[in-house]
Amino acid sequence: MTVELISVGTELLLGNIINTNANYLSVECAKLGLSMYHQVTVGDNEARLCEAIKTALERSDIVILTGGLGPTSDDITKEAVARVIGRRLVMDEHSRERILDYMNRIMVQNRTVPKELAKITENNWKQVLKVEGSIVIDNENGSAPGYIIEDNNKIIFLLPGPPVEMIPMFEGGMLPYLKKLQDKVFISRMVKICGIGESTAETMILDLIEKQGNPTIAPYAKGGEVHFRITASADNEDDALKLINPILDEMYSRFGINIYSVDEKETLEEAVVKLLKKHNLTIVTAESCTGGLLAGKIVNVPGASDVLKEGLITYTNEAKMKYLGVKPGTLDAYGAVSEQTAREMAEGALRQSGCDVSIAVTGVAGPGGGTPEKPVGLVYIACGISDKVFISERHFKGSREKVREYSVTAALDLIRRSIIDVYG
Amino acid sequence: MTVELISVGTELLLGNIINTNANYLSVECAKLGLSMYHQVTVGDNEARLCEAIKTALERSDIVILTGGLGPTSDDITKEAVARVIGRRLVMDEHSRERILDYMNRIMVQNRTVPKELAKITENNWKQVLKVEGSIVIDNENGSAPGYIIEDNNKIIFLLPGPPVEMIPMFEGGMLPYLKKLQDKVFISRMVKICGIGESTAETMILDLIEKQGNPTIAPYAKGGEVHFRITASADNEDDALKLINPILDEMYSRFGINIYSVDEKETLEEAVVKLLKKHNLTIVTAESCTGGLLAGKIVNVPGASDVLKEGLITYTNEAKMKYLGVKPGTLDAYGAVSEQTAREMAEGALRQSGCDVSIAVTGVAGPGGGTPEKPVGLVYIACGISDKVFISERHFKGSREKVREYSVTAALDLIRRSIIDVYG
Repeated sequence: MTVELISVGTELLLGNIINTNANYLSVECAKLGLSMYHQVTVGDNEARLCEAIKTALERSDIVILTGGLGPTSDDITKEAVARVIGRRLVMDEHSRERILDYMNRIMVQNRTVPKELAKITENNWKQVLKVEGSIVIDNENGSAPGYIIEDNNKIIFLLPGPPVEMIPMFEGGMLPYLKKLQDKVFISRMVKICGIGESTAETMILDLIEKQGNPTIAPYAKGGEVHFRITASADNEDDALKLINPILDEMYSRFGINIYSVDEKETLEEAVVKLLKKHNLTIVTAESCTGGLLAGKIVNVPGASDVLKEGLITYTNEAKMKYLGVKPGTLDAYGAVSEQTAREMAEGALRQSGCDVSIAVTGVAGPGGGTPEKPVGLVYIACGISDKVFISERHFKGSREKVREYSVTAALDLIRRSIIDVYG
Repeated sequence: MTVELISVGTELLLGNIINTNANYLSVECAKLGLSMYHQVTVGDNEARLCEAIKTALERSDIVILTGGLGPTSDDITKEAVARVIGRRLVMDEHSRERILDYMNRIMVQNRTVPKELAKITENNWKQVLKVEGSIVIDNENGSAPGYIIEDNNKIIFLLPGPPVEMIPMFEGGMLPYLKKLQDKVFISRMVKICGIGESTAETMILDLIEKQGNPTIAPYAKGGEVHFRITASADNEDDALKLINPILDEMYSRFGINIYSVDEKETLEEAVVKLLKKHNLTIVTAESCTGGLLAGKIVNVPGASDVLKEGLITYTNEAKMKYLGVKPGTLDAYGAVSEQTAREMAEGALRQSGCDVSIAVTGVAGPGGGTPEKPVGLVYIACGISDKVFISERHFKGSREKVREYSVTAALDLIRRSIIDVYG
């Protein structure tokens, strides 16, 4: 089946916001095995929106519209769909109750909402109208309902624009509906790899990619990591897994320790925190060029406080000596960006904190500060575990922000590899 | 004039990458005063791409295509445009020289490029063909050239997909071309506001927004900040500024210190670093719930090492006592998330570092750890300057990551306000 997205909103055409909804829905539709050939963005203009809906219904089986369901007169998506398919808008008692309840809750609980928003204004009642014969999907995070409309062998989804409302409604309402439509189930696993470049990784499984059928193998690149999604379709979940597992085994045998997860939702920092918890280890960070970004990444994992106790941002040589006991002689002889300094930072952080694991990063993030011997992008990372120190020397390309982002990924990866080396 | 975007690439339809190009080009076109009514995304399929180009040329004056200019057989944008407008592809000697030179440089300088990419393969020569009569735009960051084609009173732009190639080519090649087309110049200023919510900010200038004409006033919301773009069109820059300046003055008089910049490219952290440098001040960070993100944000500003000397991530009570001298009695009596602890963190960081300014953050980021008295989202921020401590108590809503992001913005804002308070 084919699916088409229509994103509605003048704010998209003006660039006020990035269309992350299109990306989210593309991924979800691909996972369901739906073929997407067109994505269209139009503004809050009835003629152009109607035209886009008409065109989409001619060429696609499923049309997903996001945005334009709010209470203002600019919000015309529901009205445009009703006009194109020739149906009336009728009162939806259920939504009336729910919106009344929602607005009351907002008013009572959330005193930070400005008064003018917390009022149930006349135009809020526009949201209680539905296209006749449509299935209503409740919105737990806003007032506008979503809708599923079956018409003339086509299916139309209407979803609100804000991702915080749209995503739960898609997952809770549209996804189960779409899954029921399929005679096959689609199961996917995400092989997440770190420490190998994208083109090298693709080359390593080129034969698998070239002969792919069911399952499919799709690469996704993401700031220093490479992900491959393996998707199989079958009559049931067991059969789909029987198709996926041999590919997974093959990928494990080729990529080995470079794979940090096969769970779609697990991030590298989550895998690292999980590994630390598994071995009951605490960690301390000592950052120069990443200036706190590495600790900040780890801290974003819920429950990180069980493992991350403290961190030191030692941007200057003075701070490296004061907090980490880096020797003046080391800084003089080798410089702040050197294997030796990284090693002493990692050792000093262990001593100072009493933690089980330390991770230290020192490098030239640029744009200034590079020399022929120590160019912008040169980064030393050291991971200390009891009396061992693991060192990684990396050369990154790109802007100051890119060098930092890649450094953080490489540091997380070094923690992971070092723990596996020591603890198995 | 109307403009339409066509983003080409199956990777967009599969959701492998987010379409940030559409956002970038929407903003640029809006700044030029061009009207954008449609954005379309299609895959690497000739029939559907040709159809999209035909439709766009019927309804829009300018069509911008991004993606599909690479060397592989999947890359068909140039071929599709040539077919739709009925022109031949011809050899472009200039691009041949440039690509040869570019590939040689890549091979010599960049030994990290895998061999298979650094070879000048047969299909690279596909990139030296141009649509007959087109203007070639050189690519400084990749091999694929861009093109401007004038046809039948329409203008077609072809740009490569990777933003790192596309953006400089748009700025260097397309933008001057578009500006020449306009009989008017468009000048804009971005009023960047921090410390006031979006709806409050809009309410404060509702009268200006409602009576807008030339200049226009467009709001952009961005993680704890509110931006308003003021755009005026006139015969020349001076006249445009004469239209903008009274609005700017009015906004300054209404928002006052809440405006941190009117420079499109200046971020809040850049404004803070600039302010620190202006008064020749150094800064130290002491972070609990933000865990290094605040220091990481400051460090992302080039030249930050002149002002940020060190930072302490004191996630545990032990670390707060050890590095910052927070008193056990304070932690016992008021807890780690309290005005008193934030104050002692800021005071301790000043003492410990010898810096001129300190900024301390402690809060409940969630999802766990909240209590009725200290709910998730409660954050205390303290800024110490010599013997003064400025305190801000904030209540943020949203996920762990959102609470952190807003906390970082609020901390940067407090640094700014505190320095202005002390140093004027």
